[in-house]
Amino acid sequence: MILTVTLNAALDVTYTVDALVPHSSHRVGEVTERPGGKGLNVARVLGALGHDSVVTGFVGGATGDVLRGLLAPLPPRDALVPVAGNTRRTLAVIDRSTGDTTQLNEPGPQVGPAEWAAFLLTYGELVADADAVALCGSLPPGIHVGAYAELIRTARAASVPVLLDTSGEPLRRGVAARPDLVKPNAEELARLTGFREPLRAAGDARRRGAHAVVASLGPEGVFAVTPQGTWRAAPPTAVRGNPTGAGDSAVAGLLSALAEGLDWPERLARAVALSTATVLAPAAGEYDAAAYAELLPRVRVEPHVPAP
Amino acid sequence: MILTVTLNAALDVTYTVDALVPHSSHRVGEVTERPGGKGLNVARVLGALGHDSVVTGFVGGATGDVLRGLLAPLPPRDALVPVAGNTRRTLAVIDRSTGDTTQLNEPGPQVGPAEWAAFLLTYGELVADADAVALCGSLPPGIHVGAYAELIRTARAASVPVLLDTSGEPLRRGVAARPDLVKPNAEELARLTGFREPLRAAGDARRRGAHAVVASLGPEGVFAVTPQGTWRAAPPTAVRGNPTGAGDSAVAGLLSALAEGLDWPERLARAVALSTATVLAPAAGEYDAAAYAELLPRVRVEPHVPAP
Repeated sequence: MILTVTLNAALDVTYTVDALVPHSSHRVGEVTERPGGKGLNVARVLGALGHDSVVTGFVGGATGDVLRGLLAPLPPRDALVPVAGNTRRTLAVIDRSTGDTTQLNEPGPQVGPAEWAAFLLTYGELVADADAVALCGSLPPGIHVGAYAELIRTARAASVPVLLDTSGEPLRRGVAARPDLVKPNAEELARLTGFREPLRAAGDARRRGAHAVVASLGPEGVFAVTPQGTWRAAPPTAVRGNPTGAGDSAVAGLLSALAEGLDWPERLARAVALSTATVLAPAAGEYDAAAYAELLPRVRVEPHVPAP
Repeated sequence: MILTVTLNAALDVTYTVDALVPHSSHRVGEVTERPGGKGLNVARVLGALGHDSVVTGFVGGATGDVLRGLLAPLPPRDALVPVAGNTRRTLAVIDRSTGDTTQLNEPGPQVGPAEWAAFLLTYGELVADADAVALCGSLPPGIHVGAYAELIRTARAASVPVLLDTSGEPLRRGVAARPDLVKPNAEELARLTGFREPLRAAGDARRRGAHAVVASLGPEGVFAVTPQGTWRAAPPTAVRGNPTGAGDSAVAGLLSALAEGLDWPERLARAVALSTATVLAPAAGEYDAAAYAELLPRVRVEPHVPAP
């Protein structure tokens, strides 16, 4: 079983309008709602890949009830922990005239000390049964900035591989707790380390504590610096589409391949094929299964040879 | 008791952002939710004025549950009729940098024939106990365009005064059913009649069936053409503020004064004082009680003397 943690789970709401014009009134044509937050997206992809997954984090209020109702028929098992506040919504407003998306993200519920303690109990029990753990996304209000570091120490004490996918100070503190893997994008990695050059930045992140670093480079694929070697993995051709959820699909690829005992080049190929197939899918955050199958053998994974 | 009908009731959600920039991502600073839809706003003001009020219309789904929960502690009595679909949300996005509001309105639930029949039963029972009825706002999907005309005929058959506050084809059909009062704004009145000049347009609306017409002229107050006479009523000075809900406060003023047996000039003074006090209130849709008390004796109500 793979455990994904989404402390700030969300209900992803999408509105479609003819054209978004600030300071005017709009009729919303279509309203869709689905479970959201990075860890829930990762778990959905894991389910599609045939892996057992369990989602935990916090859920509460009327929006939390809707989220749980939508999660119930899906493969990931719901082990979310109740919180008094209301689960946040993220609203994507799609402008039909341009295809552009405008995003409005609620902050999430205030989480109290007793709720955090209840979560730690649940998390400890789930980690004991997990083959791998993914810690994903932002922290809701009230959660201390070292929360991910605390969760990483628990997983490491149980000898369960742990992946961290977050940003800012929670990433900085988390890295110092020595996670097995971090998956920042180039921007997050540069903010963490102060270095823009991927090899130098990833090396610095490893010195700070991360055992392995997989940096996502957008359409160019990923760059991985690990104890077993350094690789670049790229899709066979550049693709265009909606990058929403591509990073979460990459996390699902890395974790599922790790759980199957595959080596680094195979993990990276799967991550790149899945994230590229996600960009190609018409629905944001889903992946195109046929494109994934077609892309997987064609991802170029090359050992990195430092310039002389 | 005053009955207000809101067939397309709403949960009014407000987001505050630093600055709304299309095609970018925003952190929402503050989220507020409150019961919405014109008839619910009217009933809230009636409650603040000390009048018993009952709200009916449709409510359903998770959003409907939130709406009912927020309505429960307020004075208006909840006689909303359950519907299978989800009550709509209206989202107001306030841009802190400019003070502008961008509005995104969901369409509302699809209402089926059995649900409409259930509503008609409830409505018939409530009308029998009502001193006045207000029919407010847009129609949800699935409701026939002559719905307000049908509700007006029921009220008239029970000899209960009925006010219609809607627009477009539902207003056109409703006027033909001879409501006691319609309260269009200048734009809606022009669209109904084809005339821009208020006296001519109001006269035409009366010929179409409305016994009385109170046209709201924004900051200039109202213009009323009734069987008892023609008046203009205006605030003592022009005010600036948020006009959201000003029209609903005017409806509450007209209905409460009607129920108290006041004559037309007093009804119009109350409508103008309440709507002006609503523009002055810091929270959208609320009215400033002190401003209302101060404005009421100072509203200028003058019989209209046609130009020679």
